[in-house]
Amino acid sequence: MAKQTGGFVEHITPQNEDFSRWYTDVIKMADMIDYSEVKGCMVIKQYGYGIWELIQNQLDARFKETGHKNAYFPLLIPKHLLEKEAEHVEGFAPEVAWVTQGGTEKLAEPLCIRPTSETIICSMYSKWVQSYRDLPVLLNQWCNVLRWEKSTRPFLRTSEFLWQEGHTVHATREEAEEETVRMLGVYREFMENVLAIPVIAGQKSEKEKFAGADHTYTVEAMMLDGKALQMGTSHNLGQNFAKGFDIQFLDRDGQLKYAWQTSWGVSTRMIGGIIMVHGDERGLKLPPRVAPIQCVIVPVAAHKEGVLEKAQELFDALKGAGIRTELDDRDQSPGWKFNEWELKGVPVRLEIGPRDIEKGACMLARRDTCEKESYPLENIEETVRQLLGKIHDNMFESAFRHREERTFDAHNWEEFMQGIEEGRGFVRAMWCGETECEEAIKEKTGVTTRCAPFEQKDLGNVCVHCGKPAKKMMYFAKSY
Amino acid sequence: MAKQTGGFVEHITPQNEDFSRWYTDVIKMADMIDYSEVKGCMVIKQYGYGIWELIQNQLDARFKETGHKNAYFPLLIPKHLLEKEAEHVEGFAPEVAWVTQGGTEKLAEPLCIRPTSETIICSMYSKWVQSYRDLPVLLNQWCNVLRWEKSTRPFLRTSEFLWQEGHTVHATREEAEEETVRMLGVYREFMENVLAIPVIAGQKSEKEKFAGADHTYTVEAMMLDGKALQMGTSHNLGQNFAKGFDIQFLDRDGQLKYAWQTSWGVSTRMIGGIIMVHGDERGLKLPPRVAPIQCVIVPVAAHKEGVLEKAQELFDALKGAGIRTELDDRDQSPGWKFNEWELKGVPVRLEIGPRDIEKGACMLARRDTCEKESYPLENIEETVRQLLGKIHDNMFESAFRHREERTFDAHNWEEFMQGIEEGRGFVRAMWCGETECEEAIKEKTGVTTRCAPFEQKDLGNVCVHCGKPAKKMMYFAKSY
Repeated sequence: MAKQTGGFVEHITPQNEDFSRWYTDVIKMADMIDYSEVKGCMVIKQYGYGIWELIQNQLDARFKETGHKNAYFPLLIPKHLLEKEAEHVEGFAPEVAWVTQGGTEKLAEPLCIRPTSETIICSMYSKWVQSYRDLPVLLNQWCNVLRWEKSTRPFLRTSEFLWQEGHTVHATREEAEEETVRMLGVYREFMENVLAIPVIAGQKSEKEKFAGADHTYTVEAMMLDGKALQMGTSHNLGQNFAKGFDIQFLDRDGQLKYAWQTSWGVSTRMIGGIIMVHGDERGLKLPPRVAPIQCVIVPVAAHKEGVLEKAQELFDALKGAGIRTELDDRDQSPGWKFNEWELKGVPVRLEIGPRDIEKGACMLARRDTCEKESYPLENIEETVRQLLGKIHDNMFESAFRHREERTFDAHNWEEFMQGIEEGRGFVRAMWCGETECEEAIKEKTGVTTRCAPFEQKDLGNVCVHCGKPAKKMMYFAKSY
Repeated sequence: MAKQTGGFVEHITPQNEDFSRWYTDVIKMADMIDYSEVKGCMVIKQYGYGIWELIQNQLDARFKETGHKNAYFPLLIPKHLLEKEAEHVEGFAPEVAWVTQGGTEKLAEPLCIRPTSETIICSMYSKWVQSYRDLPVLLNQWCNVLRWEKSTRPFLRTSEFLWQEGHTVHATREEAEEETVRMLGVYREFMENVLAIPVIAGQKSEKEKFAGADHTYTVEAMMLDGKALQMGTSHNLGQNFAKGFDIQFLDRDGQLKYAWQTSWGVSTRMIGGIIMVHGDERGLKLPPRVAPIQCVIVPVAAHKEGVLEKAQELFDALKGAGIRTELDDRDQSPGWKFNEWELKGVPVRLEIGPRDIEKGACMLARRDTCEKESYPLENIEETVRQLLGKIHDNMFESAFRHREERTFDAHNWEEFMQGIEEGRGFVRAMWCGETECEEAIKEKTGVTTRCAPFEQKDLGNVCVHCGKPAKKMMYFAKSY
């Protein structure tokens, strides 16, 4: 489809021609972001940020329901704090930005801009946690973080991004594990019920886990091109940070013990997932629960008597019913507006013209199926609300079907290679669990381990690649 | 009052002994913040952050009602952008933090951490604004900013702080002025109706205006010690940034014109204002509309049959009615809990014991007046809701009375000096408007101009200090 911008026509690259260009075309033409003069940093424009606000509100409610409260920790982390947990500093030090001058003074110790906040938060936890009575600590932070990236892509990988990071402290290993799993479950439920994105939940390999964690759980989604996107992670930190930062508590039994910790996060990257799971040649398709505009009203033959008045009346009714609605009364043709709102992925378009009004009806066009149908004006709020629900369900189901169609089981290396060559998507196969083998697979095929899913399937006893005894069934895929 | 913390008792310094220590004692003991290892940066703990979340929600709704949308711009600003507006860079350059290294590479151009975002935003506006059809642009950003401060105080002045910054672009001088005044009005209404803080609205002097603005409006509040706190500002930027950043648009008349801009902001500093306007010797007094806990239920003789059950029932009823409620069933004495919740400034405490239950009643204690009274249990939600409204009104009125009592008119320099020596608070006096005179007053008395209020009062024709012709009646005060 085409968009008129100041005299020249821009086109969205077709998905099958170049998926990656399709992605950046859509983002730019739907006015979600813009590129700034700052290397690797994007500007999130109103339409993109509106999605993030809806994500924030609905996730935050879930965090609060599970007993978490928000807090805020400093942006800058002194070098010596970053270095307290050995694996962590090794993982993050190469990609942080350093502040070396404050005002007119050169700093005695450089400060890094947080790439994640475990270290600054643990430095506080070591003061706050003294007794079993102080536990559990259940905190979350919404903030910006920065990782100096060499190559970047809007939403998917940018130097600065917005996210939430949960950080909890527990008295026992079991409680920490329970929390790690619980929050992954919150992510999964949110992604399915709000973003309409089906995800595979499972455990990351040793190589792919968070730097400093005991183990990492993940939710992985399949994009339209068959590649995987890691949508969120939940880390069981064990006692690694507790030992590095001396977070000890006096337990009920009078013993001084190291605490057990977790951390978990999702970011603006999810917006990239929304685009690549649901979009089509016309542009975005936004899941209704995070669509900044759920229903747009386009008057047809707006100059005819009564049309604009009726459109306004419908706008008031829908808005009053809590449906995010916009009335497009700009001086442009209906066709031009249809294109624009399809590009922007608005789930429902309501068209109202003189003939509709005569019949006491209006047309409702669904963005998910691109079909439209006439509906009575009476009780239109309820009709639109139900339609939004149906659209959500249909978007989820079609994403689910797509993933199932492009997931296959490889029982041996030949099947594995063949599937990869055919570009089929997710490969399920048995694996030995060894990093060396994982690296060899990546080198040969370009695919990485995504996770060992919680729902295992028995595909044999030996590793699909090296033939050693298999530990788990893994998902393998190319990924963003 | 005293608080038990791990075996030793902490005391709040009395206000009249040392107001400044009272302030930091209250903040620390009410568990709002903690000091981090990072110079000048505080950790905002759950209880403090909960207030900020309520401020954000209620302000954000007001921004949206007035047509603004949120967006997000990069944290890091290249040096050459900061330098494009001459007054602006002069004002801010001495207090910014510089990133000079990213990952392993030394940067060719240093990047500063935003002290405010005019420059990065204007660099985008120069791309986005081409035609009168693109106007107005009405954006807001919630974010962290950093100013390298020499001496800091929690909430009032910290190197990093959280705020919102509105940035708008208009076609005419008049529209920009209208917006500047409108947003100051939004702040004023918010502070009065949500924070229960009366404010003086007016214009800053040339010396005190924002670096780069044509002129700055402000809302100023009086703290309990008679000092002023600048609670929020709204700047008419004129065409200063438009010229520096080349923000031009083709107007209806076919002429290329520089745009007119505004910016406006409030920050976590307001929380400092809440503490210093409302607090007392027992600790915080939170205005009900930003109190994370509006009503705390304390069971009395909780071991007696039916007490905890009744307390739980009341909790469910209040929570169900949308009142932010907490049930304190910890194993501590009621008296200990009363102290704790008074320190934390919870507006209403509901006490329920066996004798209350027998009578079908409960005690409601108001934090604002420290009085308590018995109320029937029937329809308790409505009773508490009304009481919260009364508490808000009473807190506003008492802050208003305090300000009026400590504001005086100086008709000549003797009266001015006498008032200052008596430590009376705000001085109203006629003033010539000259920076030199302003600096001399400050040097002699320690007071600064706060603003020329919109509501002027005629106190004579000549400047209270230098005797030259007076331009405006000003508020003068010592300030934070």
